[in-house]
Amino acid sequence: MPTASGHTDAIQASRVIGADVYNTNGERIGEIKDVMLEKTSSGIMFAIVGFGGFLGIGEKYHAVPWSSLDYDVDAGGYVVPFSKEKLEAAPSYSVNELTKDDGILARDQAYDYYGVQPYWH
Amino acid sequence: MPTASGHTDAIQASRVIGADVYNTNGERIGEIKDVMLEKTSSGIMFAIVGFGGFLGIGEKYHAVPWSSLDYDVDAGGYVVPFSKEKLEAAPSYSVNELTKDDGILARDQAYDYYGVQPYWH
Repeated sequence: MPTASGHTDAIQASRVIGADVYNTNGERIGEIKDVMLEKTSSGIMFAIVGFGGFLGIGEKYHAVPWSSLDYDVDAGGYVVPFSKEKLEAAPSYSVNELTKDDGILARDQAYDYYGVQPYWH
Repeated sequence: MPTASGHTDAIQASRVIGADVYNTNGERIGEIKDVMLEKTSSGIMFAIVGFGGFLGIGEKYHAVPWSSLDYDVDAGGYVVPFSKEKLEAAPSYSVNELTKDDGILARDQAYDYYGVQPYWH
């Protein structure tokens, strides 16, 4: 059910893709390029946040735990509870690196790096 | 890891959206319009499969358990282990009906109707 602030707990993937992502300073760090979905667990592995690059060249990707993304209506995008410094020092990947081995390495590194409770057992 | 047939366990949401869906008879039943994502559980609630309608009018939607969708390279889309009759008799919804109450009603009805083991506890 929507909370008093209007937030809901469920969202369509098509609405997530392309949304902006902000850090705790309110600075835009990038946008959600995609969301990695796992079949056997029906788990949302992570959001793929693209950042950097110029005119489409050199963009790198972060894997960000899905549960860390809070939609902020005022910001018009997602806020993650991580500082600029924390995000800048996070592991980054090419698309191939993110998706090889079914994304498990990127997922495990992300949850470990950000200290987020795993959704899996 | 990819299986011998090349199937992987993880996929990007952007690649799922727009994919065709087939029943056990090999008949195309519709396409995946979207995937509903739940924040607190990091769970993939269901795929939204659009079917019917004409020239964009009158389309209805099924909620199909994510774990029921098997990507078939030869078919170039997803196969669900349900017959044409089973699918045709399934609950259908408008978009509003699917997304109200955070999709919980549609999810519970779908898992119950198709007899699929819930991913949640």
